[in-house]
Amino acid sequence: MSQTDLVTEITKQSEDFSRWYLDVVRRAELADYSPVKGCMVIRPYGYAIWELIQRELDDRFKATGHVNAYFPLFIPESLLMREAEHVEGFAPQVAWVTKGGDEVLEEKLIVRPTSEVIIGTMYAKWIKSWRDLPVLINQWANVVRWEKVTRPFLRTTEFLWQEGHTAHETEAEAHEETLRILALYKEFCETVLAMPVVDGQKSESEKFAGASRTYSIEALMGDGRALQAGTSHDLGQNFAKAFEIQFQGRDKSLQHAWTTSWGVSTRLIGGVIMTHGDDSGLILPPRVAPYQVVVVPISRGNWRETVLPRAQEIRGELQRAGVRVMLDDRDSQTPGWKFAEWEMRGVPLRLEIGPKDIEKSQVVLARRDTREKAFVPMEALVGAVTMRLDEIQAALLARARAFREEHTSATNDYEEFKRMMEGRPGFIIAPWCGSHECEAAIKAETQATIRNIPFDSPAPTAPCLKCGQPADVSAWFAKAY
Amino acid sequence: MSQTDLVTEITKQSEDFSRWYLDVVRRAELADYSPVKGCMVIRPYGYAIWELIQRELDDRFKATGHVNAYFPLFIPESLLMREAEHVEGFAPQVAWVTKGGDEVLEEKLIVRPTSEVIIGTMYAKWIKSWRDLPVLINQWANVVRWEKVTRPFLRTTEFLWQEGHTAHETEAEAHEETLRILALYKEFCETVLAMPVVDGQKSESEKFAGASRTYSIEALMGDGRALQAGTSHDLGQNFAKAFEIQFQGRDKSLQHAWTTSWGVSTRLIGGVIMTHGDDSGLILPPRVAPYQVVVVPISRGNWRETVLPRAQEIRGELQRAGVRVMLDDRDSQTPGWKFAEWEMRGVPLRLEIGPKDIEKSQVVLARRDTREKAFVPMEALVGAVTMRLDEIQAALLARARAFREEHTSATNDYEEFKRMMEGRPGFIIAPWCGSHECEAAIKAETQATIRNIPFDSPAPTAPCLKCGQPADVSAWFAKAY
Repeated sequence: MSQTDLVTEITKQSEDFSRWYLDVVRRAELADYSPVKGCMVIRPYGYAIWELIQRELDDRFKATGHVNAYFPLFIPESLLMREAEHVEGFAPQVAWVTKGGDEVLEEKLIVRPTSEVIIGTMYAKWIKSWRDLPVLINQWANVVRWEKVTRPFLRTTEFLWQEGHTAHETEAEAHEETLRILALYKEFCETVLAMPVVDGQKSESEKFAGASRTYSIEALMGDGRALQAGTSHDLGQNFAKAFEIQFQGRDKSLQHAWTTSWGVSTRLIGGVIMTHGDDSGLILPPRVAPYQVVVVPISRGNWRETVLPRAQEIRGELQRAGVRVMLDDRDSQTPGWKFAEWEMRGVPLRLEIGPKDIEKSQVVLARRDTREKAFVPMEALVGAVTMRLDEIQAALLARARAFREEHTSATNDYEEFKRMMEGRPGFIIAPWCGSHECEAAIKAETQATIRNIPFDSPAPTAPCLKCGQPADVSAWFAKAY
Repeated sequence: MSQTDLVTEITKQSEDFSRWYLDVVRRAELADYSPVKGCMVIRPYGYAIWELIQRELDDRFKATGHVNAYFPLFIPESLLMREAEHVEGFAPQVAWVTKGGDEVLEEKLIVRPTSEVIIGTMYAKWIKSWRDLPVLINQWANVVRWEKVTRPFLRTTEFLWQEGHTAHETEAEAHEETLRILALYKEFCETVLAMPVVDGQKSESEKFAGASRTYSIEALMGDGRALQAGTSHDLGQNFAKAFEIQFQGRDKSLQHAWTTSWGVSTRLIGGVIMTHGDDSGLILPPRVAPYQVVVVPISRGNWRETVLPRAQEIRGELQRAGVRVMLDDRDSQTPGWKFAEWEMRGVPLRLEIGPKDIEKSQVVLARRDTREKAFVPMEALVGAVTMRLDEIQAALLARARAFREEHTSATNDYEEFKRMMEGRPGFIIAPWCGSHECEAAIKAETQATIRNIPFDSPAPTAPCLKCGQPADVSAWFAKAY
């Protein structure tokens, strides 16, 4: 009770988005701080969202021919060193194991920040012939990156993710895989998380350490900042050469494989919170809501004898129809308190039932997103609930899309760009020459980074925003998490 | 091809059980050695077994009111130190993180060998009132224990497991939970893994470090050695006192909670291999077989035009009935080679179909366990397959039970006990006084340890096997993994 007494004390989004976020994470019991610096505890309500995300993604990976496996947490230092760009990118942020039991290790181990090097080593052993290709493996795992500034779900020293690692016979097949997964991520984010994303290619400087090309999906949060929600890397032959992943080709010649890697993480939960939430707290899309419906019996008179049995029947009926239901039958709290509590925790649909409703053979359904209330006849309940859940799912995506459109603009003028970036404008589309210098100068002066160059980005119609040289592409800029 | 050419080269079980085990693990592509000392890679075929185990267990945990969460991988040294017996038990075998990025850590971190201390710390924060109890949380995670001698699945430095951690209002409730989970594990092992287990209490010396009482399930492997397959610990108030997990009781007094913890790991896969396998390799119980049926088209004449389409239809038909099917349509291998390959990999049922079968509208079904073959009319196929899968599941359990019964004996005489233990006798039931000295002496002289004292163990009818003092219980001894 001590914690939940604080339901009403969430900072308003409009006052301080960052504090609002931390309040929601803690008060909705999604995650909690731990005694380990930079590491969080994912509480059952937050973990249930992750399990729903996992199930949806895992089904998609398997439907596209991928299988799961598990590779070691520890990586010997010498392996990390084998791909030059990779080590440069990751060495500064790894945790080092130097002692096991009483023994000081001859070779230090790193805790995996990502698994290209250990998986590459195994692929070199397993892949001998073109007949062994493609290898399409995914891993669900924890990884560690030593971070100075952390924020629950968005950036933590340890986090959970999936990392796909594939090896192919040809460059074209590896590239196709890279884009297939990016499209899968986009479809997943939009269909399941109701979170629209922009898909495109990262600039050279934002590319994964060791990749030939990195692609990303970028979402827009409620405060106008962008969130990189997933990445897919075409690794070319870089890792295959560093780890000697070679096979005998159809023409009998010895060739290096073409590899990819791709991942999304528990960061997606942060994305869901910041895409849909409002001043009252969390709003969960039905497809990732641990409880899609909360049943709140109106506790008047001898409600335990009259209302509760009917509420239990309703729970059963909805569960049989595949709906995830919580029946809040606590004696210790009032219905009004429960309404606020479950609103704060983002349950998409509330079902109220009291003595009068039973007389009239009806219930009240209240939507979390629009707060619309409707009386629904008992006999039409299941249909009414599932229809509303579908409507909420669609409405959340539509609202997020509209928000992104309102917060996406374009400019060819750097002074205007700088003024716009002073607030929280969302995405700004601007012409860019492709040089790292201009990208770095824009970042230094405005905090805005190139999120990506979308596949459907129009050709630039003006010179580079920064240097005035001919522009190469229209890049999407934003301040980002 | 290079690897699978070796199908026939598995060491015979009867010649060298230990080498047979390692051969099966590697050649069936369940796991592979990694460049990290003591750590293995779980390959897709092995991991698919783990996924089936996870799904079955997770459903059972949820059906009994448990929820999943995730706690940090790292544990500050000072937390480990708080429960005296616990630190003594685990400190010698932990991996130490001493450096993060470029920074030498002020306080060293251990990589979790188990999570009582980190979870206890959080429970102390979350639990305030008796209304907050019980807390029933499970975690699916990797853990690390620095091991000197390792063996795939059975003992590795890193392994995957689930660890349940619960907190209760009363001693009785905690004890009930401990036994509920032990019973759940037993039912799971017998129903799903077809692996019979003996459930009972561990002796004091074999108890979990910090527990009040430890219970285990013990299985008997094909070489007559026992395998501890799962443990459930009644932790009393030991961890609650060390971590200050306190709540206000119904009578308003401040009380320490009563906690439990319990776990099973990827070791279960080793148990499945060694319970059911034979000289030809693996035999998988249908409920954990990644492929329950392998369809092998007989490749005669223009089989790709004639046989293959029918084989594909059959695959579809079985999949729609919920059967996990592999259709081996490779051109590069003969049917005979495929028979041996999938036998080695333990697929419970093989379905052969050739041109003559199509003429006669039939298929051949061959059981892996008994090698019985039968012609089955095409129109009765689905029923014939599912019936056989059920039969195989039941037959494997019956066979394992019979094996255990044949390899369980009793003696009251220490000289006889020693002679029996020179071979691989399985379980020997013997009277024991309850003293650590006798237990230790028996272990030193025979390598046999007390596996547990089964719940249904008969009262001893003779004095202690070792010291001749009055016996306390009938203990089950065995050499163990």
